[in-house]
Amino acid sequence: MDRKRFPDDDCPIARSLSVVGDGWSLLIIRDAMGGATRFEQFRRSLGIVPGMLTRRLGMLVAEGLLERRRYQERPPRDEYHLTERGRRLHGVLFALGEWGSSEPASRERVIDLVDGCSGDRLDPVLVDRASGRPVEDFRPRLVPGPGASPALRSRMAALRTAQPG
Amino acid sequence: MDRKRFPDDDCPIARSLSVVGDGWSLLIIRDAMGGATRFEQFRRSLGIVPGMLTRRLGMLVAEGLLERRRYQERPPRDEYHLTERGRRLHGVLFALGEWGSSEPASRERVIDLVDGCSGDRLDPVLVDRASGRPVEDFRPRLVPGPGASPALRSRMAALRTAQPG
Repeated sequence: MDRKRFPDDDCPIARSLSVVGDGWSLLIIRDAMGGATRFEQFRRSLGIVPGMLTRRLGMLVAEGLLERRRYQERPPRDEYHLTERGRRLHGVLFALGEWGSSEPASRERVIDLVDGCSGDRLDPVLVDRASGRPVEDFRPRLVPGPGASPALRSRMAALRTAQPG
Repeated sequence: MDRKRFPDDDCPIARSLSVVGDGWSLLIIRDAMGGATRFEQFRRSLGIVPGMLTRRLGMLVAEGLLERRRYQERPPRDEYHLTERGRRLHGVLFALGEWGSSEPASRERVIDLVDGCSGDRLDPVLVDRASGRPVEDFRPRLVPGPGASPALRSRMAALRTAQPG
């Protein structure tokens, strides 16, 4: 297990990466969001060795991103279904997909998000709620928010203060 | 280097994870987006051993996410500045931060995005461009888009077809 490798001082980005920061976990969630539920589907899609897939699936179940459902008793076989917590990773996957798509001007989207109920294609864009302007029109910087802990405020203040070389 | 660990068959999510899938890379970009430019700032913030930080910074420069700028000649010292490509990761960091923040109803945001020029606080939300509805109101699923390669289409089709146990 790779949990809690990162010093987090209450930073929610570091906390997320402690759970899904190893890459394989997000690819498993990607495949689950693409419809996969069974071990063999994940294994074929990912080309991952079975022991490693078993460990990753177990971790994702323990973290509450997937849940096991028995679909066959003899021999016992489980399916893996996204929980609400796992499904909420769609924003992370979408942002990774957008970033990994080169040439934003001319491209056709390689992976789409659709509404799982209606099947309607979504065209997601990250906007500022008040102005409606796309966030990419700004030059975004990260700063501590109102809920930041003193430790996080202190660490982030040091980022904005250049030290002598 | 951990590059190209993931089978990507042109999947932009896997491609992104081949570059920033090791967690530390995204934390370095997070700190750069918080204002850090110097080795010691990254080292203190991350509590990472110097050799590993040197390798990660070198990889991020080679990938075009950071650029080196010499700020002192004797002894030679470089600063690391976000490139446009690095800055475009704001959506990934924001999504990770949102996911890592528990209790969406009652929380105050722990990390905020601000416009680096005006300093105005942004309140980003992922919406469907046509309807303006937040994507989290849907039950998003991933499907191949118009730009998907045949290999990607084929892999994703297999995700939607349960195999016999």
